[in-house]
Amino acid sequence: MGTLYSISPFTGKTQYDALTESTAAEVGETVNRSAQAGKTWSRLPAAKRAVALRSLAGALETHKDELAQLAHSETALGFDRLVGEIARTCFQLRLFAKELESGNLLTREVDEAVDGPPPAGHPRIVRMYRPLGPVAVFGAGNFPFAFGQLGGDTASALASGCTVVVKDHPGHPQLALRIMEVATQSLSESGFDSDILQSVRGMGAGTALVQHPSIKAAAFTGSQQAGRALWDLATSRPHPIPFYGELGSVNPVFITKAALEERRSELATELASSLTLGLGQFCTKPSIVFLVDDEVFLDELVSAVKQVGGGQLLSPLSLERYLQKVAEVSEVSGVSPLVASEADMTDLSVKPGLLATSVENFWGHAEKILEECFGPLGIIIRCSSESDFERVIENLEGTLVSTIQASPAKDSHLVATLIDQLSDLSGRVVVNGWPTGLAVTPWQHHGGPYPASTSLLHTSVGLQAMMRFVRPFVLQNVTESSWPELS
Amino acid sequence: MGTLYSISPFTGKTQYDALTESTAAEVGETVNRSAQAGKTWSRLPAAKRAVALRSLAGALETHKDELAQLAHSETALGFDRLVGEIARTCFQLRLFAKELESGNLLTREVDEAVDGPPPAGHPRIVRMYRPLGPVAVFGAGNFPFAFGQLGGDTASALASGCTVVVKDHPGHPQLALRIMEVATQSLSESGFDSDILQSVRGMGAGTALVQHPSIKAAAFTGSQQAGRALWDLATSRPHPIPFYGELGSVNPVFITKAALEERRSELATELASSLTLGLGQFCTKPSIVFLVDDEVFLDELVSAVKQVGGGQLLSPLSLERYLQKVAEVSEVSGVSPLVASEADMTDLSVKPGLLATSVENFWGHAEKILEECFGPLGIIIRCSSESDFERVIENLEGTLVSTIQASPAKDSHLVATLIDQLSDLSGRVVVNGWPTGLAVTPWQHHGGPYPASTSLLHTSVGLQAMMRFVRPFVLQNVTESSWPELS
Repeated sequence: MGTLYSISPFTGKTQYDALTESTAAEVGETVNRSAQAGKTWSRLPAAKRAVALRSLAGALETHKDELAQLAHSETALGFDRLVGEIARTCFQLRLFAKELESGNLLTREVDEAVDGPPPAGHPRIVRMYRPLGPVAVFGAGNFPFAFGQLGGDTASALASGCTVVVKDHPGHPQLALRIMEVATQSLSESGFDSDILQSVRGMGAGTALVQHPSIKAAAFTGSQQAGRALWDLATSRPHPIPFYGELGSVNPVFITKAALEERRSELATELASSLTLGLGQFCTKPSIVFLVDDEVFLDELVSAVKQVGGGQLLSPLSLERYLQKVAEVSEVSGVSPLVASEADMTDLSVKPGLLATSVENFWGHAEKILEECFGPLGIIIRCSSESDFERVIENLEGTLVSTIQASPAKDSHLVATLIDQLSDLSGRVVVNGWPTGLAVTPWQHHGGPYPASTSLLHTSVGLQAMMRFVRPFVLQNVTESSWPELS
Repeated sequence: MGTLYSISPFTGKTQYDALTESTAAEVGETVNRSAQAGKTWSRLPAAKRAVALRSLAGALETHKDELAQLAHSETALGFDRLVGEIARTCFQLRLFAKELESGNLLTREVDEAVDGPPPAGHPRIVRMYRPLGPVAVFGAGNFPFAFGQLGGDTASALASGCTVVVKDHPGHPQLALRIMEVATQSLSESGFDSDILQSVRGMGAGTALVQHPSIKAAAFTGSQQAGRALWDLATSRPHPIPFYGELGSVNPVFITKAALEERRSELATELASSLTLGLGQFCTKPSIVFLVDDEVFLDELVSAVKQVGGGQLLSPLSLERYLQKVAEVSEVSGVSPLVASEADMTDLSVKPGLLATSVENFWGHAEKILEECFGPLGIIIRCSSESDFERVIENLEGTLVSTIQASPAKDSHLVATLIDQLSDLSGRVVVNGWPTGLAVTPWQHHGGPYPASTSLLHTSVGLQAMMRFVRPFVLQNVTESSWPELS
């Protein structure tokens, strides 16, 4: 198989030692070990699985400086931001641990027997959950920790009693390697079989993984193209498996006239900040903003965006794709630049950009304008009134999140209408807040209609993420009197 | 488009008036009306939707004699059995109505805001459910009521706030038509838009339905071949939709030596009865029975099976396929007939049959023997000891249900082991009972690993069936102080 290099996002040159991609045979062996380890892991008491999750969180924390530094060298995401992301990842692992200790979700439910003929009469039914089996996790490049080897998909799959095989992200191969070393050591030291969490490397390994008969589910965070290709493989298997893909989203923002009147400067600063957070490389980035045309606001927004510093994107390839996308949208007739997205090819850095067009022009070029752009580009759509919002919403594809900025005093009815419409479009609607900085809370929902996610019933963040990897199972007619040990 | 005839299962001749299949344009219009009706239906309070479900149940009951008679003429399932099935169907509709009135499942959950920086600090998150949109329901031929126009899929989809377009089963077109007339009248008289429940007719209409952009989910009960073809269409759409298919299952039974010693005659009678219930046309039929070889038991089983009367299968086509399958398995080397499945072509009736082979021979021909047979054929696999069961279970494909017959006094450990293994194979395990006569209880689970179902996380029976048609949605930062009307 091929060789995988770590590429510096600062120089575009290879760094560290070259790594070897996993062969199909190696993928097979890894999955077999995972299935083997699962025989014990899936039958451990939930509280025992919590110990493993806590041990992984502890190991991440112990190594946080080293890991954040290594991650920065491969992703340019910034040391402080990465330390913060590690904290979020540990918080998430412990949230699942706490859930396993409390046992709220993986419940056991009983319909006691009812005497008499059917349909009212019936035997005793006990319903419980069983883990699906080995899960393939395809981590994201933009969150090497929170959506990486030890991120939400891994944490929730392990919590559910499944074992995990991660397909390492090619953008940070050395970090992936090091996280796995840390995880393996931590699991072994805590007395667990480290085969419950393994990884494979290379694109061929990824497609082999999702097609391996012993892989029972897959979770993916990444591009629409790669996600759809893996979805097609997963669903066309002789025995199809659940594929939980988060594929991308434009996350529209709707700003009312009254909101601008009340909070013009605040909104300009906050929008510039949300748009450029992590240099616009968040899946929750508010890419496209619909507002009632307001020159003063746009002037303030332009200043705010210009004040945001530039930096390196995740990789030279990300930069190349970003600049291409900026060029494509800029060339659309009727689209004018408010802030040019300037790149400095000597250090591969780029500054945020802002484009604008009218809502009339948007309709003529919606497909091109609505393509997701990974990087710090925002597009403003000038509307003549809020009545334009409704038609826009009806014509958008599914998104992870939508945002409304409105006046509580003046927009109450409008906001109720918008929420109702947006609830058909997005998994989450934010009111007078911003979509980035997704909170890890028990009831959080991160997903949405396709292409936001491939399985709109499920979330990749929040405790319900566990439920993606278990299936219900009922035991019929096991009564306490006949089978005291089983009931 | 083509013409659809009702074929008598008693004569093989056409009966009643010919019906016209729906054109692609008609399917489109039907789905559009469904989506339009959904705008109101999806926003009704749950208790109001309950009124519609109760009205449908009442209408079925009012017309039960007429409908059962019509159903018998098209399916030969028997008047009394069909009246019982109508009672089950009404019970199911009312179970969902009761659930909507109590509001246990479609809950609203809140993570109150927590002050402070992330990851612990976060805004207020309110999580609720939204219906997916119009659902395509492909009913089954063997349960024209319980899995038909007003069956579990329709009841659960309507309960969830979705509208429904049924693809009529070609086996009982006149009944399908009449049920829809009764349903439409009942909904209209109760003040509901009858477009919330419509139907289309013909195979082409079915494939058009599952590919229509406004159809947001599909539920199917039927053959593996048809189900897989529709699954492939649903998952390869530009915007894939959830497809809940129940495709077939061999439902193995494992009988221990001690169980035979304790209850030989009882087990023989009960197994013969379960195997031939509805002339073996149940998806929960115990097709294949593994037992420790016992000549006395087999003699009693043979007598019991011979005592079961024959009858007509659902259709002449069912009979043709059944006889072909019996012939194929009978020709497998080492398979011997215990009871020949005799057909009488003058009245198209058939009597139950029983085949047997050794577990050693089973391994050589497992694929052929394990193909589902729709009709009253049972296959006995003679094992030398219960230790054969483990290897068998490891090599079976997913099933809806598995059954264990054992001695509470002597088999406690063995049963625990078997349940543990079978919990990976089946959605339901029955101990000292029989798989047929699936109870409609709140926590029932009817599903299982592929090919038993295409979506092993979900059930088509029990209250959780509703959850197939809703998706979570969160509202962020809507506080009671700012938005009193929304929070």
